[in-house]
Amino acid sequence: MEFKYNKHLEDTMNQLEDKGVFLTVKNKENLNTMTIGWGFVGVMWNKPVFIAAVRYSRYTYEMLKNTDNFTVSIPLKGQMDKELIKCGTESGRDLDKFDKYNIETIKSEKVDTPIIKDCDLHYECKIIYRQTLEAELINNEDIENKYKNNDYHVMVYGEILSFHN
Amino acid sequence: MEFKYNKHLEDTMNQLEDKGVFLTVKNKENLNTMTIGWGFVGVMWNKPVFIAAVRYSRYTYEMLKNTDNFTVSIPLKGQMDKELIKCGTESGRDLDKFDKYNIETIKSEKVDTPIIKDCDLHYECKIIYRQTLEAELINNEDIENKYKNNDYHVMVYGEILSFHN
Repeated sequence: MEFKYNKHLEDTMNQLEDKGVFLTVKNKENLNTMTIGWGFVGVMWNKPVFIAAVRYSRYTYEMLKNTDNFTVSIPLKGQMDKELIKCGTESGRDLDKFDKYNIETIKSEKVDTPIIKDCDLHYECKIIYRQTLEAELINNEDIENKYKNNDYHVMVYGEILSFHN
Repeated sequence: MEFKYNKHLEDTMNQLEDKGVFLTVKNKENLNTMTIGWGFVGVMWNKPVFIAAVRYSRYTYEMLKNTDNFTVSIPLKGQMDKELIKCGTESGRDLDKFDKYNIETIKSEKVDTPIIKDCDLHYECKIIYRQTLEAELINNEDIENKYKNNDYHVMVYGEILSFHN
């Protein structure tokens, strides 16, 4: 069932901050997913947009550089809590997470990257803008402390082409 | 009544894209409000954040440069449709919109900028980051067309300190 992009937004945000959600990227033959806990949903340029925050060092960021789409898959019933922990701590550089953790995917409706089967909500996004956070623009100690290693976040803006369960 | 920041998010987004919401800024003695139709709500740096997109040329942007807070006030029942149109087209450089349109404000709970009385939902925000969109990062024709005048948006990130009706 297809929803308007802002349906269930309270659920999306609760899951994002509590246990995280899956950010999945396909780049030619490579497929990877990672757990993200920071992101935004809103409207920009008259388009519904999901902003995913991904650190430079991440394998997912390397993959995002060379593709134009991603998906965000959201489990709401605790059914993938273990996988969320694993996919947030291990890197797709070292292993195939789908294979190792038996994570099944399904073809998306609008983008090349698939969605994760056992999730409840899915955003299919086309990348329309990306911008790295800049050290010199941060004047909040709390935030500076999160970048002591200079591993800044890239804000990846994805136009939501489809949102469904 | 105080809510968690993500309560009523569907309403906020509907109003944002349909008719807009009020972005209010107080800077020393000056107070101004403008209608915005683009923005985001989400989580970043473990904080709930409202991102307001404001163009460089705007009086509101000038004011935001020299303050550390703003509020977003959201009418949900059509009761301020006229004021939203006026506050989106006229500039606070030329007139006092509160005075001219009889817009009443109330003191905020957590920030210096007041909220707009006749609205239904209110976000009180402390500015923690701001970054201007960059021309060379845009590779989407649709988006480029919105900046033919080089009047780029500044993304103003406000930590949501309070959200209430």
